[in-house]
Amino acid sequence: MVAIYPGSFDPITLGHVDVACRAARLFDRLIVAVYAGGEKPGGLFSLAERLALAQEALVPQAGRNIAVDSFSGLTVEYARSVGAGTIVRGLRAVSDFEYEFKLAHMNDHLAPEIEVVCLVASSRHSFISSSLIREVAALGGNMDGLVPPHVGEALRERFPVCAGPLPAGSHR
Amino acid sequence: MVAIYPGSFDPITLGHVDVACRAARLFDRLIVAVYAGGEKPGGLFSLAERLALAQEALVPQAGRNIAVDSFSGLTVEYARSVGAGTIVRGLRAVSDFEYEFKLAHMNDHLAPEIEVVCLVASSRHSFISSSLIREVAALGGNMDGLVPPHVGEALRERFPVCAGPLPAGSHR
Amino acid sequence: MVAIYPGSFDPITLGHVDVACRAARLFDRLIVAVYAGGEKPGGLFSLAERLALAQEALVPQAGRNIAVDSFSGLTVEYARSVGAGTIVRGLRAVSDFEYEFKLAHMNDHLAPEIEVVCLVASSRHSFISSSLIREVAALGGNMDGLVPPHVGEALRERFPVCAGPLPAGSHR
Amino acid sequence: MVAIYPGSFDPITLGHVDVACRAARLFDRLIVAVYAGGEKPGGLFSLAERLALAQEALVPQAGRNIAVDSFSGLTVEYARSVGAGTIVRGLRAVSDFEYEFKLAHMNDHLAPEIEVVCLVASSRHSFISSSLIREVAALGGNMDGLVPPHVGEALRERFPVCAGPLPAGSHR
Amino acid sequence: MVAIYPGSFDPITLGHVDVACRAARLFDRLIVAVYAGGEKPGGLFSLAERLALAQEALVPQAGRNIAVDSFSGLTVEYARSVGAGTIVRGLRAVSDFEYEFKLAHMNDHLAPEIEVVCLVASSRHSFISSSLIREVAALGGNMDGLVPPHVGEALRERFPVCAGPLPAGSHR
Amino acid sequence: MVAIYPGSFDPITLGHVDVACRAARLFDRLIVAVYAGGEKPGGLFSLAERLALAQEALVPQAGRNIAVDSFSGLTVEYARSVGAGTIVRGLRAVSDFEYEFKLAHMNDHLAPEIEVVCLVASSRHSFISSSLIREVAALGGNMDGLVPPHVGEALRERFPVCAGPLPAGSHR
Repeated sequence: MVAIYPGSFDPITLGHVDVACRAARLFDRLIVAVYAGGEKPGGLFSLAERLALAQEALVPQAGRNIAVDSFSGLTVEYARSVGAGTIVRGLRAVSDFEYEFKLAHMNDHLAPEIEVVCLVASSRHSFISSSLIREVAALGGNMDGLVPPHVGEALRERFPVCAGPLPAGSHR
Repeated sequence: MVAIYPGSFDPITLGHVDVACRAARLFDRLIVAVYAGGEKPGGLFSLAERLALAQEALVPQAGRNIAVDSFSGLTVEYARSVGAGTIVRGLRAVSDFEYEFKLAHMNDHLAPEIEVVCLVASSRHSFISSSLIREVAALGGNMDGLVPPHVGEALRERFPVCAGPLPAGSHR
Repeated sequence: MVAIYPGSFDPITLGHVDVACRAARLFDRLIVAVYAGGEKPGGLFSLAERLALAQEALVPQAGRNIAVDSFSGLTVEYARSVGAGTIVRGLRAVSDFEYEFKLAHMNDHLAPEIEVVCLVASSRHSFISSSLIREVAALGGNMDGLVPPHVGEALRERFPVCAGPLPAGSHR
Repeated sequence: MVAIYPGSFDPITLGHVDVACRAARLFDRLIVAVYAGGEKPGGLFSLAERLALAQEALVPQAGRNIAVDSFSGLTVEYARSVGAGTIVRGLRAVSDFEYEFKLAHMNDHLAPEIEVVCLVASSRHSFISSSLIREVAALGGNMDGLVPPHVGEALRERFPVCAGPLPAGSHR
Repeated sequence: MVAIYPGSFDPITLGHVDVACRAARLFDRLIVAVYAGGEKPGGLFSLAERLALAQEALVPQAGRNIAVDSFSGLTVEYARSVGAGTIVRGLRAVSDFEYEFKLAHMNDHLAPEIEVVCLVASSRHSFISSSLIREVAALGGNMDGLVPPHVGEALRERFPVCAGPLPAGSHR
Repeated sequence: MVAIYPGSFDPITLGHVDVACRAARLFDRLIVAVYAGGEKPGGLFSLAERLALAQEALVPQAGRNIAVDSFSGLTVEYARSVGAGTIVRGLRAVSDFEYEFKLAHMNDHLAPEIEVVCLVASSRHSFISSSLIREVAALGGNMDGLVPPHVGEALRERFPVCAGPLPAGSHR
């Protein structure tokens, strides 16, 4: 059985890696599907960068049944086009849940034959979101332990000025 | 007793129609009040279009006590100007509720004589929101069953390229 | 138009009075319907006491269109039997909302012709619940300002030992 | 791959049937596991009755890969004892989610090799809970459309006095 | 400045210890106040046991400014009687928050001079609650890593039959 | 002990003043830290204006241990640079809570030695947010009672056209 795990992955986090690895044990094949849609406000990495970061993060540790792909358009159309019967989503918090709830019902309207399956993020990843990571990394926060090492590296390259601790008094 | 049911209605959905028809049974007269405010980011239809779509959706099925109007400025000022003592709101989910809660208290501060009344959307409409409909219709999703037929038509005209199912493999 | 405002009212609070008075302005007649069902765990006042406390709290200040009654069985059956087309509920917090949501959908299943209307409790009453009042009054907490004066009196009679401040050191 | 779908099923509802049938498409074998634990306050049907009602509801419509069983003790221990690697849970609302979140993390602590997978209940079942059904059926509410027909029959047998509409005026 | 950290502590968990140690760094003196109130349904350890378990868990690791005490009656009265100006509460999840919100407003009504301060539980403790621990330990679940070692020992003594893994097939 | 109370304060509200004054009683010194970061969409007052409005609102009524400062970069770096061991946050509603939860865990990741302390906003301020105030003031809503008088003045100066009630019929 084929499943897709769609998202922006801007950038991929250890929470995403955790969900993907667990999903890969449930399904014969898991496609981590990076959304190629128009530039979102607040976006950081290009599609090519997001694909490369996800590829490097996922393939080594998750066995041979994980692939990384990009898609545009409706998620359910992409799922159909690759023969996937399941969409995997990670749940972290109540606000996630409400959004996933709406999305799951919309997907059920669009493609009732495709199942949405939610995995609860492990507790030590439950506060990690790509948007918070972008926001904090831009201010020089160290993201090691929240993202894979090569993603931490990419964040430091993207925000070189702030990469070290701010000099004392620099806040004025 | 006159009530207003304010919103952006961009576009009007079957959930809106359901709330409006139920409100029209509670009050002598219901004004569906389309907000004419400045362009919101992510907005789709012009004020004239939103008014026309709402008019066509509501008047036939809700009896003679529903009117469609537009307004700008504070909702409570509009309510006062048309002699309405009640503002009707639809509730779908927790996130709605929190926002409505803040808004109800703010309206109570601004105009304590005007009552806010919330109707719970019926369960089959509880996942429909105009913003999700705009987002999914833009990607070619079929909104029939979620919006009135003429709104589905207007969405297909607005997003002609995606109106049919995507050809297989078109996601790459 | 007739509406009912059902509840246990054990005891009636200023939050209930606020919701009832606002509902009485929306409908021709409002029946505050005290649930007579079997003893709930944690219940405090008898049905007769709850009726009397509600009566004294509501009738003087809300005009002539409020009546107090008791009922048992399904709320929608009671509504039908008194010719009420609307059930009024007060909303205070998210946990309320979820319960009301389930209840509203259940009532829609049982009696689609009866409308459920929610009023948002005013912010200074939003933290008051009968169960918290029973709990705190039992420990001697002063409930003046949260319940009508005669209800505060009834609570002090019910919990005479704790009615004053605890003597210093009494906690061991 | 074997999965279990544990619960009290007191009684089984159409929401449970929906989740079970969808889970049965995801896994090679699904065991609907009825909790045999000590009598819960508010419980209605005996273990034997709950098993029989679930059996009758599930086996016909879900193909040959669904079995009904009972268990006591820890859910993860039961999962291990039947060789199941996955626990299926249905999500309906935010309050569900918080509880499932805590439970998923606890299960991860107890048995990290067992995955918890959540399916979002379809919107027309999202307000159905066994506890609300017990409560409303006890007052004579008609549960047809929310539970399978034979469960509705069992509820009417259990609450014979209230099975019809209450006679007018019976609320006093 | 003196603060109290009130609760049932039935039993004390590593989440409680975390909150207490962090609170002890904020205040001159912290009193962990074990509620001595009437037996709650579902309660496990006696007051004397809960006090002893808390004492052993807290005093060694938190320096000399933590004391353990018991109290009955209103929390704010106890705070006044020991000269505490602050009540410390731990926050884990949304459902906690709603309850704490109501409680904080009630305490503000009863004793406006006493401040309520909430500490967010660390993410690896956010799913631990005493009630879940009692429930799972009663079924033989291993609580090591969620409670201090001597509390795990006390739970195993209390539930000796289930302390080891269940024998295969024991679920019938 | 030094604490910071960071925020955008665009503009400072009576809810902020309430939290700041209560925090000032808990700590030896409180720095209200106005975020100087890049222009946010929807922002209203400049950094200099926000600082001046906060200064005028806070210093007179909160004793000599409150200072107002601005900062940029990471909040925890600012806290370190001024020797603060505590970050104060106000909690109003569930949506606040979820965000604060994520932020508290992120701060714990970045600077485990710095404690995050949440104060529950008093119930009459729980619906006030700077963003809602900006939105409503822009439409001419009177913010007296929600913000300090000089902030109300500043809002009226900023939105002079709408400062009075809209003329009847002006909504078309």
